[in-house]
Amino acid sequence: MELVIGVAQRLEPVAKREKITRVLEGAVLASLFLEASTRTRLSFGSAFSRLGGAVRETVGLTFSSMAKGESIADTARVISGYADIMAIRHPEAGSVAQFAKASLVPVINAGDGAAEHPTQALLDIYTIEEEFATRDKRLDGSHILFVGDLKYGRTVHSLLKLLSLYERMTFTLLAPELLSMPASIVELAEFRGHRVIQLSALPTEPDRVDVIYTTRIQRERLQGEQIEGYSPDFHVNTAFVNHVGDPSTVIMHPLPRDSAPASNDLSTDLDNDPRLAIFRQTDRGIPIRMALFALILGVADNIEASYREPPWHHPSQPGANSS
Amino acid sequence: MELVIGVAQRLEPVAKREKITRVLEGAVLASLFLEASTRTRLSFGSAFSRLGGAVRETVGLTFSSMAKGESIADTARVISGYADIMAIRHPEAGSVAQFAKASLVPVINAGDGAAEHPTQALLDIYTIEEEFATRDKRLDGSHILFVGDLKYGRTVHSLLKLLSLYERMTFTLLAPELLSMPASIVELAEFRGHRVIQLSALPTEPDRVDVIYTTRIQRERLQGEQIEGYSPDFHVNTAFVNHVGDPSTVIMHPLPRDSAPASNDLSTDLDNDPRLAIFRQTDRGIPIRMALFALILGVADNIEASYREPPWHHPSQPGANSS
Amino acid sequence: MELVIGVAQRLEPVAKREKITRVLEGAVLASLFLEASTRTRLSFGSAFSRLGGAVRETVGLTFSSMAKGESIADTARVISGYADIMAIRHPEAGSVAQFAKASLVPVINAGDGAAEHPTQALLDIYTIEEEFATRDKRLDGSHILFVGDLKYGRTVHSLLKLLSLYERMTFTLLAPELLSMPASIVELAEFRGHRVIQLSALPTEPDRVDVIYTTRIQRERLQGEQIEGYSPDFHVNTAFVNHVGDPSTVIMHPLPRDSAPASNDLSTDLDNDPRLAIFRQTDRGIPIRMALFALILGVADNIEASYREPPWHHPSQPGANSS
Repeated sequence: MELVIGVAQRLEPVAKREKITRVLEGAVLASLFLEASTRTRLSFGSAFSRLGGAVRETVGLTFSSMAKGESIADTARVISGYADIMAIRHPEAGSVAQFAKASLVPVINAGDGAAEHPTQALLDIYTIEEEFATRDKRLDGSHILFVGDLKYGRTVHSLLKLLSLYERMTFTLLAPELLSMPASIVELAEFRGHRVIQLSALPTEPDRVDVIYTTRIQRERLQGEQIEGYSPDFHVNTAFVNHVGDPSTVIMHPLPRDSAPASNDLSTDLDNDPRLAIFRQTDRGIPIRMALFALILGVADNIEASYREPPWHHPSQPGANSS
Repeated sequence: MELVIGVAQRLEPVAKREKITRVLEGAVLASLFLEASTRTRLSFGSAFSRLGGAVRETVGLTFSSMAKGESIADTARVISGYADIMAIRHPEAGSVAQFAKASLVPVINAGDGAAEHPTQALLDIYTIEEEFATRDKRLDGSHILFVGDLKYGRTVHSLLKLLSLYERMTFTLLAPELLSMPASIVELAEFRGHRVIQLSALPTEPDRVDVIYTTRIQRERLQGEQIEGYSPDFHVNTAFVNHVGDPSTVIMHPLPRDSAPASNDLSTDLDNDPRLAIFRQTDRGIPIRMALFALILGVADNIEASYREPPWHHPSQPGANSS
Repeated sequence: MELVIGVAQRLEPVAKREKITRVLEGAVLASLFLEASTRTRLSFGSAFSRLGGAVRETVGLTFSSMAKGESIADTARVISGYADIMAIRHPEAGSVAQFAKASLVPVINAGDGAAEHPTQALLDIYTIEEEFATRDKRLDGSHILFVGDLKYGRTVHSLLKLLSLYERMTFTLLAPELLSMPASIVELAEFRGHRVIQLSALPTEPDRVDVIYTTRIQRERLQGEQIEGYSPDFHVNTAFVNHVGDPSTVIMHPLPRDSAPASNDLSTDLDNDPRLAIFRQTDRGIPIRMALFALILGVADNIEASYREPPWHHPSQPGANSS
């Protein structure tokens, strides 16, 4: 994890368009999104493009060969003959591991059902570390509040596992009872010696938290649970943040957030709050995914040597939430 | 407009595949077509590819994040973290302006509902100027006939606004009454001192026109109007062209044209007529869109210096309508 | 055919990622898959990417312009203004020839309905030649067994025509009566002097065959035939192969194979059998398609001179069926 983050930091000049590199020239990424996820797909593709590689993609709920009865193993073996690396999003938990087993080339999990979303977890860790660095804080010993759909939100599953690798953490898990964190993940965190507090409502006088990690209700994954939206108890807005946080609290969300009025997802009343890190968070997907590509394809040592000045000018048009 | 056309002219060697350039190497275009438009999407993408940049795309009536309740502002801000420039097609009028407001990088409108299609208007102006140049004509003082669906055909809205910037124009607007040009656009042209003639049928002895600009009925945008197809009055064929034009008249259409027999769209009996400019018109989308990219990303001054000979041979296989 | 295969052999270092080349830098492929075929589309796109060109794609059962009534001729002429070469997959037999007629640039048939799939036939011939080379066999005089859906399997139509160009061949065609090879193709092979044996069940003591070419039932093309799956007579598994083949027999399949238990398609019990060439076969689509692009765009003589070392390291992770 430290290795990936270290390479990501070294790739920031490319992510910020101050440098260009062609270090993956001639390499091909096969990006297979069997479940639609435009932002993640574009993030993987853009990261590979910025390193100079070519991206070949397929998108959609059905995969034409699979619809004809092809096994995952056959698909993986065939596509791996066309590409040097693959990124796979799949609606079923465990399917990406099956892909990887049959592939001749490395496979990156871009999200498999309700199971894992490891690159999201890596960019989340990177974001917490970078945000903490500007506040002279350290991750060890910090207090992270997870709010919302902790059952189907796979990003929080992957993230909690990675955060459990740090020392002396406190995790508060605030979720409707129907959407609470799977017990196996809670047990893992406790087994590693961290303090885990599970709540279905906020206490009147909560402990200060260093990070508020909010999530969207994964309506598309609900299995019969009757959830119309969060109750106001789970509505992270300015009042909520001031209740549990302080001026150094970092507010995160894996996005997309549901902006429909009744959703009670992360409020837009925080959009001009400097603690809101959600767009810096999504921006950091690019250097993290570039770092994974660079490490896997063996070019991490050569990146600075490959840097050139862009022949074009990056337009400077920063908006309200620019990093 | 003159600036864009000037750069487009200088980029013709790339459009004609006589030269290649890598002047946008390392840059990323995010091409978001929330409404399908294969030809426009391919034209934007090809223009960016020919300048050496990488294209990341998404296509479809639904955008996965938006389907999850994400606001346009969130989507725009997130995608702008992945790209250096965006091209957006959206089914709702005004939506692209909302995108642009929240984006960190420049956004090009690739068509928003029935509102505007500015790059089409630019390539139309470029086409008229280039066609007139071969006839020793000037745009100022010329007579342009618009025929067909002038209500929902957004290309004619954008084009009439641009043509109104010239001097002493005559515009004849020939449309079924249900599909006539919006009053605001007619008023704009009149306010700028041009002569506007609105007709629902052709006169027996019309004035000669310099350009016949035909359109397809935008069936997908009709709002209750009962239009099965144009009546023969609006059928632009050889007889129509000879009735209103002369040997120097230019025949244009934004394409696609509806070739179903009952559509009465632009007739294929003109396909071998040298006045038919429709394919030279669509070809010119490439240099116009390259010019916009080059200007926005600050490389317009460097394009000739970046030209190289192609390492491959452009196949020469001209058809009947080659430019 | 020999020319294409010769160039494909010279491009193997690129296909195997030992070399990179940018010999098609600046060129644009328009890849139009009006019928979904992920593997073929990725293979064409990857081949073009590895030669350094840019790929612009469209996918789907409907093509937006065509849905608006545009003729194939208009579509072809327009897209050919954006690209230097096109690859077209279309559900209707003969449609790709119409495309090619109206295009300004070369068009490669990537499969048109039940008619032809010529690049598949070329990679099949290339595979047979390469597999035979390791066995000191020659194609002339060999015995090829085709098994399965020989009526709608267009790959076997194209392949049988190409194989008929060789000398003294024996073709055994084993198919359910409802799915037998079209008479015109059988007659062509016989006209060229080859021996053709048509069977609907295996004989007890068959002749040894040099190649077993199996196919999937093209359910999506059936026109009223009641076929639930192959009967066990057409189930190519280890017992079948041992019955008709010998240790030098080559087992092929155009893929995808239907791995549903009742399909009786090519059995996975052969997956570790070195005679199974199906993944080497699909891998060879890359050099064959690169060879076609190189020949058509006039760079076949320059490919070795353009080779460079990859700046990245190809991951070595060979699986059970690696070539």
